[in-house]
Order: sequence, then C-alpha cells, then structure tokens
Amino acid sequence: MSTTSSGPRTRMSPQQRREQLLDLGVRLFATRSLDEISIDLLAQEAGISRGLLYHYFGDKVAFREAVVRRAADDLVAQTEPPAEGDEIAKLLHSVAAYVDFVDANYEGYLSLVRGAASEPALRAVYDDAFRALGERFFDIGSSIVPDTPASRLLVRGWQAMTEELVLAWKAGETDLTRDQLLDLLVASLPALMGALPA
Amino acid sequence: MSTTSSGPRTRMSPQQRREQLLDLGVRLFATRSLDEISIDLLAQEAGISRGLLYHYFGDKVAFREAVVRRAADDLVAQTEPPAEGDEIAKLLHSVAAYVDFVDANYEGYLSLVRGAASEPALRAVYDDAFRALGERFFDIGSSIVPDTPASRLLVRGWQAMTEELVLAWKAGETDLTRDQLLDLLVASLPALMGALPA
Repeated sequence: MSTTSSGPRTRMSPQQRREQLLDLGVRLFATRSLDEISIDLLAQEAGISRGLLYHYFGDKVAFREAVVRRAADDLVAQTEPPAEGDEIAKLLHSVAAYVDFVDANYEGYLSLVRGAASEPALRAVYDDAFRALGERFFDIGSSIVPDTPASRLLVRGWQAMTEELVLAWKAGETDLTRDQLLDLLVASLPALMGALPA
Repeated sequence: MSTTSSGPRTRMSPQQRREQLLDLGVRLFATRSLDEISIDLLAQEAGISRGLLYHYFGDKVAFREAVVRRAADDLVAQTEPPAEGDEIAKLLHSVAAYVDFVDANYEGYLSLVRGAASEPALRAVYDDAFRALGERFFDIGSSIVPDTPASRLLVRGWQAMTEELVLAWKAGETDLTRDQLLDLLVASLPALMGALPA
C-alpha cells in the first residue's frame, strides 16, 4: 500500500485520514470536471481500497459534494482580503486571488459553475460561496460600497460579471493580460457604484 | 379535431402548420421549464396527434431545440433598439424589452439559462443570442461603447450582470421596482465604460 506525502496512514486518526483524502480529491478536482472525479479514481490515486473510501464518504454523490464544498471553502479562504492597506489594494488582492484560484482550478471550477445551474446540491455550495464573497463588502463596512438594496444588487451583478470575465479570459476568449483583466475588474466596482442613484 | 386561432389547419401549408405549432410551443415555454415541454403536452394543447408532431419535428430533443431557438430569436427581435432617439433612450428601450421578456417568459428563460450550462445544444442557442445582443453595440458604432478588446469584455460582463440582476429581481430577491432596476442597468453600462483604461 502506498503512502502519501503526509506520512504513513497508521499514524492518522480517521478524521485526519478523511481530511487527507478530501485534500487529494480537491487536488484532482483542479484539473478534472466533477464528472471525472470518482471513488475509483481517488482510490487509485490514494492507493487504498474503494471500500475504505466508501467508509469515509458514504457514496459517490456525498464524496463529490464534500470535495466541492472543500474547494469552495478554499476559494473563500484564499480570497480573504489582507487586514492592512487601503480598500482598493485589498480589493485588488482579493480579485487577484480569485483569478489565480480559477486559473489553478479551472476544470473543477467550471464544472461547479455549470453543475450548479442544474443540480440543487451543487447550487447550494455555489450560492453559499457566492454569498460569502459578496457579504465581505458589507461586513467590513466598505467605503467603496454603500449598504443599500441597490448597491447589494450591483455587487451581486459585479460578481457575476467578474466570473464571466475571468472564465472568458481563462478560456482564451480575450487578448487581455492577467494584469489588464485585474485592473478592469478592480476599476469596475467603484465605477458601478457611481451608477447608483444619489 | 380542434382548430387554433389562425383558422382551420386545412388552409395551411405544412410549413405554416409547423410554424404555428412552434409558436404554441414557445407560448407554453413561457410558463414551463424545458423539462415540462413535451410532444404529449403540445399534442394535447394543439389538439392533434403525437404522430403528426413527430412528423413535423422529428423527435423530442429536436422539438425542444426548435422551441428554444425560436424563443431566443424572439428575444433578440423584441430587444431591437428603435431606429430613432439618443443612445441612452435606445439602451433603455432595449433593456426594458429584455426585462419584460424575462418577466413574461421566466420559467422557460430560467430553464434555458440553467440548461445551457450543461447541455451543449442549448448552450449553442444561448451563446448565439448572447452574442447577437452584445454585438449590437459594435454594429451600430455606439458612442457609449468604444470597440476595443477591453470594452468588448466589459460589454460581455455587463450582459452577465444584467441577466443576474433581472433574474434576481424576478425571483423577488430584491425590493427594487422595475423602474429602479432599469435605471440601474442603463446607468451601469456607461459607468463601466468609465473604468476602461485611458
């Protein structure tokens, strides 16, 4: 039986082992769509039996959901703005982290976006992450984004726009460089707020 | 056998009859998701045999695709800006027509948006309509929207944002009125263009 980079599995608790397998699932998810992630693939990559995987995750659907939820949590964590700096610098940091996440996890992320449209369980994960990312502006009391019904709707629109543009950029559908894309996304939020009624 | 509002079917050519059935399918699509549209339902509503419907449309998948394509064509036609007026007035007219289309065809439109995420045939229809709507700004030589790679990307983002906001509004997820929504969408396009690099 093979071991993984975290060491022999005999030293780990079941919970640790489950976490490690989830990490592996998320790594596989980076370059594969949800349909390509299976218990078989994970068992093969982890060098353990399918039975043990079913023991940890229940069934294939529960495993996919656990992987997607972990990946979404990673996205929210990685795009956390830094504590210091002005708001535009924080926004740039956060947007850059989002672009880099999509860049590094394109296949999985795209399959989540697409799957979320038709599968309620995936949509729940997607919506939770989308909401968490959007709520940040209001949690921190942003000076760029006032807290009104109209600005909340615009933030949501800006998020949908950002996703569309980053996926288009990653798919090679624009000649813009990563830096040009970042500049556009960061400049577009305050610009949109300028469209709010006085 | 029942007749429809266009008169007895004996006076119509097969092509006219097919068009009429397609119109009926599009009307049904307004208040039903794609999954709910079936040959059975259409046969029942049109008062003709299933066999005749298969004769006109081939199979269920082809029928659904024909309905969706017709609905998308209707969307593009109905949102055509008027020939006269200033650009903001034209934009308002077009955006209002889009909002009203989604309002009147919510179930079907939502199922197209969702289905397009996972079904390539639906995605092709959706993408064609999305592109046709976006291309308008460049076909007419808009003074609001310059024709650069960055502005083309932003228009695409504005379209994604518009769709997100109109669906959220229709789903009752914001307290904004239709007029407030329209004002926000119309003001957001020039505002976004202000985010373009000089």
